[in-house]
Amino acid sequence: MRVTSRDVANEAGVSQATVSRVLNGERRVAEQTRARVFGAIERLRYTPNAVARGLVTKRTDLVGVVVSDIVNPFYPQFLETIHRELLRHGMRMLFSNGERRPPDAQVETLMEQRVEGIIFTSIQLDSKLPERLLSQGFPFVLANRYVDGVDCDLVDGDNDGGASVAAEHLLDLGHRRIAVILGNPQASTSRDRFAAFRNRLLAEGVEIDDDHVRAGNFNYAAAYAEAIELLRHDRRPTAVFCINDLMALAVLNAARKAGIRVPAQLSVIGFDDIELASWEAFNLTTVRQPLVEMARTAVDLLAARIESPQDAIRRLRFPSLLVRRNSTAQLSKEATNG
Amino acid sequence: MRVTSRDVANEAGVSQATVSRVLNGERRVAEQTRARVFGAIERLRYTPNAVARGLVTKRTDLVGVVVSDIVNPFYPQFLETIHRELLRHGMRMLFSNGERRPPDAQVETLMEQRVEGIIFTSIQLDSKLPERLLSQGFPFVLANRYVDGVDCDLVDGDNDGGASVAAEHLLDLGHRRIAVILGNPQASTSRDRFAAFRNRLLAEGVEIDDDHVRAGNFNYAAAYAEAIELLRHDRRPTAVFCINDLMALAVLNAARKAGIRVPAQLSVIGFDDIELASWEAFNLTTVRQPLVEMARTAVDLLAARIESPQDAIRRLRFPSLLVRRNSTAQLSKEATNG
Repeated sequence: MRVTSRDVANEAGVSQATVSRVLNGERRVAEQTRARVFGAIERLRYTPNAVARGLVTKRTDLVGVVVSDIVNPFYPQFLETIHRELLRHGMRMLFSNGERRPPDAQVETLMEQRVEGIIFTSIQLDSKLPERLLSQGFPFVLANRYVDGVDCDLVDGDNDGGASVAAEHLLDLGHRRIAVILGNPQASTSRDRFAAFRNRLLAEGVEIDDDHVRAGNFNYAAAYAEAIELLRHDRRPTAVFCINDLMALAVLNAARKAGIRVPAQLSVIGFDDIELASWEAFNLTTVRQPLVEMARTAVDLLAARIESPQDAIRRLRFPSLLVRRNSTAQLSKEATNG
Repeated sequence: MRVTSRDVANEAGVSQATVSRVLNGERRVAEQTRARVFGAIERLRYTPNAVARGLVTKRTDLVGVVVSDIVNPFYPQFLETIHRELLRHGMRMLFSNGERRPPDAQVETLMEQRVEGIIFTSIQLDSKLPERLLSQGFPFVLANRYVDGVDCDLVDGDNDGGASVAAEHLLDLGHRRIAVILGNPQASTSRDRFAAFRNRLLAEGVEIDDDHVRAGNFNYAAAYAEAIELLRHDRRPTAVFCINDLMALAVLNAARKAGIRVPAQLSVIGFDDIELASWEAFNLTTVRQPLVEMARTAVDLLAARIESPQDAIRRLRFPSLLVRRNSTAQLSKEATNG
């Protein structure tokens, strides 16, 4: 049977109110009384509630989930699955948002709440956190992005393969004057997708103009502004590869603004295949990552790591897939005469 | 200076490992040793970490935030502000998603983590939670939606006023055959917006066909399916009022699918003014709610309630504003001949 504060009061020979005062750390309790109450608590193994129980069992059932930008629709889709799967494992999500806060500070606040593990969905290449947490034996999983040279549990998509396929698709359609809108330069996804895309073009002798490489930072407004500039460029690109879908939607909207027809005058291709990509207003050709499977796997890996800290490290990479819709088309005179 | 477990070990005359074993509740520690350690902990007022500190101060700095559907872009925008404002108050967000889980169960799991308060962004009209939490004196705030007859801290928008203005706008444009796509029937927002909209039309002698009132449940896919049916209707509506923006975007996409031009053949108006509403692909006429201010105020109210449980209850209602874009237009022959 569960021990109550009444039992503690009886055992210590004091009132329940006194037990409560002692637990609340109030100073107006005699040292002797205080000692009696703590003795009773100890003998009865009394745990005032789930938090206090956590103090004994080391379980809080809390998992920290760090995302960079909840307003980017990629993350709500990812979080929906993570949240559901955590619940299935009896765990709750402590949510941390925002790249503008130093990630170390974000993790500090999660640790203070004694999360049992952390899922990072947006780790940056320059972060020292994964290495630090590894050395402390603290359970965590990197999802979607990784850090060079750190061997830890990881779930991501095949960014190299996906970007190569995107490049091949544009090459097949006859495009040669191709722009790229990059994500956060500290994101492995942005770096790897860009490198693989550029290399695939280079293998066919196609170079990307320096001035056609733009910093969109995974952000709608930044990508929109860059797209407006690209579309006014002397050598307007005939195709744009965007490192994520949100920026590709920004390019589609910028093209509408500039009166440029997609795909007749401009081909646009994204990455992720978020739900919005398939909406009629966009019909975005993109590279699909299996977001639900990736999120589910991230939770499974973390749960396994919490249970078995000594298990082998697992790195799981899901295949990417070209989803051809109506934002890309064969290169036409209309596009080149821009 | 902060007391460490080393200080406790010295005071109790045991090793740090023993202190740790006692704190972890391991049984292979002599009763006498255990008592010495607890005595030392007590004398030095040692708090092993934030959770244990919470045991003494009753503070966990955790706030539960309940949303119905994180994939609806309304909520990420709302959450972004709530998250930032909670941090400003030194509090962390424990996140709970999903209308499919019984709200009582959701709150149970939040309570187990000893949240200090809860912000409900999607309370349902049939929920008994607000009344129960009030009677327990547990701090909470209803944001966006409310429950009839429960007098508690509340932040929402002027749903009646906003829906009336939407009705006037369509009437002014000459529309008389008007459809409505409803949200969750258990949401006060959906009920109130619909009632005010219908009443404003009735005041001008305009009735809404029963068959033109559709259940979209705030959901993209459901609204899309209803819109496709409406657009094939014998008496196709010339205008559609959607109880939120996400469903209005579904109608715009469905119109594209059906080859019906907006606004020439169909006017569409939403509610909320989420960021996507202003994208060129949509240019949605809608009723703006000041989401940032509403979210910030919800956090302020909760923080105040946690500090001062006896303060007067506050109900704050923010004005709504018609934002006229390009999804609504004067009724034309094209629309009526549908």
